[in-house]
Amino acid sequence: MTGEEMHALVERLYPLCRSITGDGVRRTLEILGELIPLEIREVPTGTRVLDWVVPKEWNIRDAYIKDAAGRRVVDFAESNLHVVGYSVPVSATMTLEELRPHLHTLPEQPGLIPYRTGYYAETWGFCLRHETLESLGPGPYEVRIDSTLEDGHLTYGECVLPGSEPHEVLVSCHVCHPSLANDNLAGIAVAIGLVRRLARANPRYTYRFLFAPGTIGAITWLARNRDRVDRISHGFTLACAGDAGALTYKKSRRGDAKIDQAMRYVLSSSGRPHRVLEFSPYGYDERQFCSPGFDLGVGSLTRTPYGAYPEYHTSADDPGFVSPEAMADTLETCWAALNVLERDRRYLNLSPYGEPQLGRRGLYGSLGGRSDTRDDQMAMLWVLNLSDGEHDLLEIARRSGLPFDLVADAADALVDAELLKEL
Amino acid sequence: MTGEEMHALVERLYPLCRSITGDGVRRTLEILGELIPLEIREVPTGTRVLDWVVPKEWNIRDAYIKDAAGRRVVDFAESNLHVVGYSVPVSATMTLEELRPHLHTLPEQPGLIPYRTGYYAETWGFCLRHETLESLGPGPYEVRIDSTLEDGHLTYGECVLPGSEPHEVLVSCHVCHPSLANDNLAGIAVAIGLVRRLARANPRYTYRFLFAPGTIGAITWLARNRDRVDRISHGFTLACAGDAGALTYKKSRRGDAKIDQAMRYVLSSSGRPHRVLEFSPYGYDERQFCSPGFDLGVGSLTRTPYGAYPEYHTSADDPGFVSPEAMADTLETCWAALNVLERDRRYLNLSPYGEPQLGRRGLYGSLGGRSDTRDDQMAMLWVLNLSDGEHDLLEIARRSGLPFDLVADAADALVDAELLKEL
Amino acid sequence: MTGEEMHALVERLYPLCRSITGDGVRRTLEILGELIPLEIREVPTGTRVLDWVVPKEWNIRDAYIKDAAGRRVVDFAESNLHVVGYSVPVSATMTLEELRPHLHTLPEQPGLIPYRTGYYAETWGFCLRHETLESLGPGPYEVRIDSTLEDGHLTYGECVLPGSEPHEVLVSCHVCHPSLANDNLAGIAVAIGLVRRLARANPRYTYRFLFAPGTIGAITWLARNRDRVDRISHGFTLACAGDAGALTYKKSRRGDAKIDQAMRYVLSSSGRPHRVLEFSPYGYDERQFCSPGFDLGVGSLTRTPYGAYPEYHTSADDPGFVSPEAMADTLETCWAALNVLERDRRYLNLSPYGEPQLGRRGLYGSLGGRSDTRDDQMAMLWVLNLSDGEHDLLEIARRSGLPFDLVADAADALVDAELLKEL
Repeated sequence: MTGEEMHALVERLYPLCRSITGDGVRRTLEILGELIPLEIREVPTGTRVLDWVVPKEWNIRDAYIKDAAGRRVVDFAESNLHVVGYSVPVSATMTLEELRPHLHTLPEQPGLIPYRTGYYAETWGFCLRHETLESLGPGPYEVRIDSTLEDGHLTYGECVLPGSEPHEVLVSCHVCHPSLANDNLAGIAVAIGLVRRLARANPRYTYRFLFAPGTIGAITWLARNRDRVDRISHGFTLACAGDAGALTYKKSRRGDAKIDQAMRYVLSSSGRPHRVLEFSPYGYDERQFCSPGFDLGVGSLTRTPYGAYPEYHTSADDPGFVSPEAMADTLETCWAALNVLERDRRYLNLSPYGEPQLGRRGLYGSLGGRSDTRDDQMAMLWVLNLSDGEHDLLEIARRSGLPFDLVADAADALVDAELLKEL
Repeated sequence: MTGEEMHALVERLYPLCRSITGDGVRRTLEILGELIPLEIREVPTGTRVLDWVVPKEWNIRDAYIKDAAGRRVVDFAESNLHVVGYSVPVSATMTLEELRPHLHTLPEQPGLIPYRTGYYAETWGFCLRHETLESLGPGPYEVRIDSTLEDGHLTYGECVLPGSEPHEVLVSCHVCHPSLANDNLAGIAVAIGLVRRLARANPRYTYRFLFAPGTIGAITWLARNRDRVDRISHGFTLACAGDAGALTYKKSRRGDAKIDQAMRYVLSSSGRPHRVLEFSPYGYDERQFCSPGFDLGVGSLTRTPYGAYPEYHTSADDPGFVSPEAMADTLETCWAALNVLERDRRYLNLSPYGEPQLGRRGLYGSLGGRSDTRDDQMAMLWVLNLSDGEHDLLEIARRSGLPFDLVADAADALVDAELLKEL
Repeated sequence: MTGEEMHALVERLYPLCRSITGDGVRRTLEILGELIPLEIREVPTGTRVLDWVVPKEWNIRDAYIKDAAGRRVVDFAESNLHVVGYSVPVSATMTLEELRPHLHTLPEQPGLIPYRTGYYAETWGFCLRHETLESLGPGPYEVRIDSTLEDGHLTYGECVLPGSEPHEVLVSCHVCHPSLANDNLAGIAVAIGLVRRLARANPRYTYRFLFAPGTIGAITWLARNRDRVDRISHGFTLACAGDAGALTYKKSRRGDAKIDQAMRYVLSSSGRPHRVLEFSPYGYDERQFCSPGFDLGVGSLTRTPYGAYPEYHTSADDPGFVSPEAMADTLETCWAALNVLERDRRYLNLSPYGEPQLGRRGLYGSLGGRSDTRDDQMAMLWVLNLSDGEHDLLEIARRSGLPFDLVADAADALVDAELLKEL
């Protein structure tokens, strides 16, 4: 899947009004289901999930603020950001003064519509450009939100690609944000790209992709899969995957889980600017996967992190804010990290007393004395020396400074020569 | 107790001639006993204390060097630093040449009288300004030290403030120095300020303040309390507490005891210049408390450390060298560190699978989407995430970068919500 | 043994044509045997040693390339580097084009002869100055290598200096390089200097010096001493010991073995430029001693490391490239490190509760109050404080910043005073 194809997906998903429940998420998952095998889960309102309860389902058809002339000064049809998520139905006439507590703007970014939502409190509101607010007269205004908040379902999608081992890699994307491109349609699109590429490989790990509303979606999945959670060996959340900023990896709570090591290795060996952040209990659904009861090895990959770019959670986070190139770069980085997870192993040197005679086996150059040594030979010496059961290939790559794939290839050659066995 | 009140105490104590035994220490402790509840201990000469023996008691009434004209060229009545501590009685007439080996000066600070003492060797001497020495003719001189060195007692004072727990915090000040203000009347005064403030609080810990002569006093206390030493959970010596220099904390021998963590945290979060030094087996009575057999979590708080200021152990260390402001600052720093010790605890998250729904409990804002998050909410997320029995609040404060009290308040709120229990 | 004497030894050994077997090594060991007690070991061709087999013995009498005029354009008699080590016998006439695949030059260092060898492949070749190669016409040439490659022996030498303990220190030098001065005649000469100095001492450790061909020699020794290998407590390989560069210590595989600590301490307390490198499974025979099955505490001391100077493995590595001063400096550094190994011990403070009263024992100054403290007294306080069974003298020297010998002297004084006992 090319960067352009991922960008086209972002554009296709952009107009849908998603929230943590409702037809926007359902329609989003339908579209993803056209591209990958996706199982859709529907969990009824009121279901107890860990410490939470699945909320009522929210749907919205229309919303506006009309002035006395009948002109829609704020119109849901123009941008679904205009309505505070989970707003209860409203049909009223009120002055600006009465309406004002329900209006959200960004005074310092007067041309942008903010994104606001109120999941678990029965409230309502509108988001609008601050410059629009400033142009409004005292009213009265006709205020209408044609929404429903009723018993229904929470919807999420799961795509599982079986590997040769039951151990799983989890990639999780939140699908609950309305028309915001980087957060998180770009993350969704990169995840789709990963699924399609993995489907053509024969991976060792079983891969589980989760497309679920933030927080409550992850909590629902965890609640329904509690006895299978320990199958997840590695994972990351994927968000803000398409902006022009440098890649940022936030470590799992463990701080030195294999995924943390793999992502750090891939980013630092890229030679390009990047950030590696310590874990914090905020951000995306790594919050849930890394809660102390689960404590999974799940980090978070973004480009510019949440809140750190001015377009964040505003109408400026539109498809023009994300690029095919950035999404392709995020995809390649994920792929490189997954390659490390796939190939990383721990071996035992079967000839650990002195170096084995590699030359006799055709694995070592026959002419001595040169001051350079071929990297592939160095990789074999490193693998042999450190394969005492304590070091895995990724650590050997780091300590040797040699490329991971060269080290892994050396290990393969040594296994073929019966000098090494996998642990 | 204000800085001014502490400074007034320094001035009141300054004229007394203290040594490791004798009426100077006794009178000092009497004055302290007017300000705080203080138990005075008298330990007889000859008592075996660990590897040591309580020495004879030394007292002095007068001492001088008189020239042929009958003029006192060196006079104990002018400054008690003029006599080497523990000098045996002398009454003799001698030339300058005979007297010279008994005279101590500071050639590089010719206007200052040094402080010298000879505790455990029967000797005598005078300390004087080098410029005085240079003005002396060949003599003869009448030399007199009217002292006694006889069986008596070693005297020290103890003040115990019971807390709700038997675990103790030890604060120890040496009281054996004669007219030297920073070393250690300022330390004594700050300790008195701490006692008075603690007496109005309801502390968790039991606080033990020790006012004892250096080395032999600490050793005597340790010998007499050997079976109770393990009650001391935290502690520090307090000295050089009033000069204008930056605060300096020297770690306990353990290097990462809770007191070390608390002092480092308080100093580094102050944002002001400060020093944190590794342990060394020299300095004040932390030498004894941190001897390997005891190895207590006892550090040392000073402003400029011993020996690192030119006024150290000279007549320039007078009440003008210490300020009310510096002593008040030292007191506040101690108080902040004790606050950390008092509030620091380890908790267990009772809802560790996923985040608990804080909003339902009124602990979390109801409107999502904003890029800022309130620090108090962040503090709750951090406390929940790290309360797995492995991390205490101080570590959570450090890792989160949030103020310790905010973290501790968050823990209190979570305990009230029955989401956390103290371990 | 002075630097000049070591340099004279380098000059004496320089003309011999050494390889991993043969009379060059044999004659080299004979000469060393004149200087130190050396046991010569002869191991027959075909002997299985670990994963290897002792190869055929190689000897060479003459070799040349003659042009049509009968002039030796390349002549073994001029430099033994001209023949690729282990070349099989050749007697042929061939054109330059036919000969070319057997010729090795350094195009970027056209005036130097490279050193090349082919131990384990039956091949042949010549090394020559690139400028010579460029002057050669199309031929034909008479090509002759008068060598033998036959069943014989691998030869190495061992010198053991018994100490008061059976634990051993291993010093290993490769003796397989032909006319190359820094690599490794300088290392050999420094080792001889060490043996002669140790022979006049009464060391605690038993010292084992190994003069063996690289790789196969160490492997042979390890194979023949497999059940005694665990006696080796510390060791290092010694090579490139005479060039003008800074000393370089490469750590053992363990990374924090005592030899690593001792070498780092000696180098860093020298105050001079030096390098400390992490272990890598390449270099000299530390490769074998640090193979994972043995994992000995054996590092590597060089001046400029292999391959890092342009003269490396060329005819420019001649006796003029190494200096008496550099070899003497390497010797002193080894000696300082061995002194640390010899004197380093772990003690138990027999009076660990409080400081013992050193003054009573004549170990502490009797006059207090001075702001300086004598280093020897500080050393005693450090040794007492850290002698809890967990810290050895080297660690105490490092933490205190005091010279190692001062710390060791303090420990001796405290043992004499019955305050300390060796563990």
